[in-house]
Amino acid sequence: MPNFSGVIAPVLTPFGEDGSADPDRFIEHCQWLLDEGCTALAPFGTTSEGNSLGLDERMELLEEIVDADIAPELLMPGTGTPSLADTIVLTKHAVEIGCGGVLVLPPYYYKAPSEEGLYRYFSEMIEGVDEDDLKVYLYHIPPIAQVGFSLSLIERLRKAFPDVVVGLKDSSGDWSNTAAILDKFPGFEVFPGSEAFLLDGLRKGGAGCISATCNVNPGPIRKVFDNWQTDEADKLQEGISAVRKTVQAYPLITGLKSIVAHFRDDPEWAKVRPPFTELPDGDAEKLISQLKALDFTMDVD
Amino acid sequence: MPNFSGVIAPVLTPFGEDGSADPDRFIEHCQWLLDEGCTALAPFGTTSEGNSLGLDERMELLEEIVDADIAPELLMPGTGTPSLADTIVLTKHAVEIGCGGVLVLPPYYYKAPSEEGLYRYFSEMIEGVDEDDLKVYLYHIPPIAQVGFSLSLIERLRKAFPDVVVGLKDSSGDWSNTAAILDKFPGFEVFPGSEAFLLDGLRKGGAGCISATCNVNPGPIRKVFDNWQTDEADKLQEGISAVRKTVQAYPLITGLKSIVAHFRDDPEWAKVRPPFTELPDGDAEKLISQLKALDFTMDVD
Repeated sequence: MPNFSGVIAPVLTPFGEDGSADPDRFIEHCQWLLDEGCTALAPFGTTSEGNSLGLDERMELLEEIVDADIAPELLMPGTGTPSLADTIVLTKHAVEIGCGGVLVLPPYYYKAPSEEGLYRYFSEMIEGVDEDDLKVYLYHIPPIAQVGFSLSLIERLRKAFPDVVVGLKDSSGDWSNTAAILDKFPGFEVFPGSEAFLLDGLRKGGAGCISATCNVNPGPIRKVFDNWQTDEADKLQEGISAVRKTVQAYPLITGLKSIVAHFRDDPEWAKVRPPFTELPDGDAEKLISQLKALDFTMDVD
Repeated sequence: MPNFSGVIAPVLTPFGEDGSADPDRFIEHCQWLLDEGCTALAPFGTTSEGNSLGLDERMELLEEIVDADIAPELLMPGTGTPSLADTIVLTKHAVEIGCGGVLVLPPYYYKAPSEEGLYRYFSEMIEGVDEDDLKVYLYHIPPIAQVGFSLSLIERLRKAFPDVVVGLKDSSGDWSNTAAILDKFPGFEVFPGSEAFLLDGLRKGGAGCISATCNVNPGPIRKVFDNWQTDEADKLQEGISAVRKTVQAYPLITGLKSIVAHFRDDPEWAKVRPPFTELPDGDAEKLISQLKALDFTMDVD
């Protein structure tokens, strides 16, 4: 049985008036996502502005959602930083409070590291965390991190740590890369980073998806996951792909927050942390009206 | 009078057998650099593997060197991280222990941020630190950070925070960019990121250099700074440029550590933290023999 599967949201992080993370809106959003069909949550991913949060902020927010009775085994927080030391701190904390897994970026400051260097980084990270329950998901997102995971690096890490390195999120946006990983590593829990590849992935043994848009469209995405072997599957996939395509024509994080702000009738939700900025005037309204033309809604009542 | 000027080393960080930062070797190296001609020190820069160090490691090392009687006003530690929150923590700590300035990367995880987003990041950072003595040096290193400072962003920040945003390190490697900044902002403390541009920079009003190679060649680099208005200047510059050219034909950080390890007869010094790896077999010996052919030495006795 896989450790994680299905529809996983990299949870948006709401900010309060003073710019600090807002635990109440955060918990409410986490609960809504699980109620609406997400099978698990990946806080502090790229979409979460996770890399704009401080170490203490991440650990405190994680404790807050666990205290709010969200089952920690459903959580796969992002714990990767450029620093081995900080990544160990965040990862150990996540395992200690019971998280089912962690999603770990490669060290992304220094560019073009060798495969051996990345192998050592992950080996030392896993040994430094030193927890039997550690389950690592490699976070491959070369368009942003610039540094990524080659097939041969994945192979080495799986071979050295078969019970720890159990999956990967592929946000390369390159289906041929996802397909190559699925072909080469049966049983590895591979999540495309966009629901646009959900059905294609499932048909090749993929585990589901971890996708930004799950923050606003969890129900229909879950429907694809639940019905992927039925005759309806392609039509359902077309529906979620249309929403994805509309949303990603705008700056993704800011756009998603504007959608939540609109449907929750809560302008505070649109706040982003620098270096992000709000959408240009009129763009939020345009995005919402394009989504409504697709019969999109968020059932937040 | 400028806040900083002259020859500044982004101090290499030695690691002990267990992979943790080694304060004794670190302090010894800091003292040697100041004795040999560095006018100031920039710990936790790119060359320092600063981005591979944890927040706690950086703060503890900084306290160790201040406790070892290195004057904090000579320190310009790197305090930039991808996160506004963590950058505020490190920056506030540096100011509180008396550091003369801080060298701050832009938030470098999310790519292609808007100028407005970066402006807000630095504004909120400066307001969040909230210390009268804060002196910020912008760290422009687009080959690695990918995110950098445009002339118009520098102009906005200087205008909004004239007593705080007082200088910049330009590691673009692009002399025309350094020249444009020097032309546009007289009085701004501009440090090229390589001593290859030291003399050219000084002739246009530059403040000195903050350069990796200052870790091994501080004396001759200082001599260029002290004699830049004399007839000897071009010849002295040729000498330090030849050393730089030789060193930078190898992976820079690993190469520099190998040089220190050789001249200190201390193999531990060659250790790097993942994702870096040691030089390939034979490369250290080749580098040393090329340097000796230039009459290079490190006077560590």
